[in-house]
Amino acid sequence: MRTKTLAQSEKILTAAARLFAAHHFHETRMEDIAELAEVGKGTLYRYFKDKEELYMALLARAACQMKERLSAVDEAPDPRSKLEAVVGAILDYFAEHPHLLDLIQHAEVMQGPDADLPWQRLRRENFRLVEAIFEEARRSGAFQVMDPQLSAQLLLFSLRPVIRWGQKPRPADMARRIVEHFLYGAARPACGCR
Amino acid sequence: MRTKTLAQSEKILTAAARLFAAHHFHETRMEDIAELAEVGKGTLYRYFKDKEELYMALLARAACQMKERLSAVDEAPDPRSKLEAVVGAILDYFAEHPHLLDLIQHAEVMQGPDADLPWQRLRRENFRLVEAIFEEARRSGAFQVMDPQLSAQLLLFSLRPVIRWGQKPRPADMARRIVEHFLYGAARPACGCR
Repeated sequence: MRTKTLAQSEKILTAAARLFAAHHFHETRMEDIAELAEVGKGTLYRYFKDKEELYMALLARAACQMKERLSAVDEAPDPRSKLEAVVGAILDYFAEHPHLLDLIQHAEVMQGPDADLPWQRLRRENFRLVEAIFEEARRSGAFQVMDPQLSAQLLLFSLRPVIRWGQKPRPADMARRIVEHFLYGAARPACGCR
Repeated sequence: MRTKTLAQSEKILTAAARLFAAHHFHETRMEDIAELAEVGKGTLYRYFKDKEELYMALLARAACQMKERLSAVDEAPDPRSKLEAVVGAILDYFAEHPHLLDLIQHAEVMQGPDADLPWQRLRRENFRLVEAIFEEARRSGAFQVMDPQLSAQLLLFSLRPVIRWGQKPRPADMARRIVEHFLYGAARPACGCR
């Protein structure tokens, strides 16, 4: 019996990512993926039993890579820089993987919002990461977030339109502007204290 | 030749909305829609040449109804109440049409982000509506939005996670909290001026 290798699996996933990005899920055939990955159909099916499983493996890989990027957030010196690092890491990763948001939205629509997709586990971890930064800010006196749960959702999800419709290439200070907006709002009040 | 009537078209759209909501687009057959709407298949095809056209008509109808709701925004007494009215109207409409966001996301994924869908025309109008409220706020001295274009995007798109993952039934003060968050940010600065 032939064993599975990581390199082979990577080759298949890379080919699948390219095809899912260029065509719709329903238009992409397992044959096309095998051909682009230069593996036999038998080999392909040994690795992934169907297109759905391949699709989920793609999202799992993206979630894993994204998580690795986010582990660098701890190195930022203060809570506000940490929030900027979170936002920057997410925007960077999506910029490098321009069709990832489509894959995620497609999976959400297909599986329903409550499905336990790999990407949704990462999302929950990201909520906790952001809430932990809020807590650090509160303890250190940097700032206090009044409604941490809603705020974490609003911050992380506000990135979707920036990813999908935002100016490309993204202005260098985008993460800073988004966090500024998030922390202190769109409006400048009359008291002029900032 | 038999003419088309609005009532007949409504009957078909209502049936289609129910089926698209309960099943995936690809699982829903024109036959099922005709059966639920109690019209013949021939009649159905006279109204809508295929499933795609029906789908687009559904989104167009939703966009039109949503636009009607938003016309009430002008009655609110000041810019901040107007923003709350916009947010409230959108959250209400989606709460009454629980599968609409799925239909929209599905259309976005299928058609690509730059397609000229009915819903995307409404989105552009909503951006302009919100930017006009910002401008009114600036003129009246209520508040000044520093980055109106980005801010309008962040406000309108931040509603998606609330629609999709938010607490149901929605707390009565949700629109107020979202606008408060939007205008003055998540953080309370140390100066205590608010």
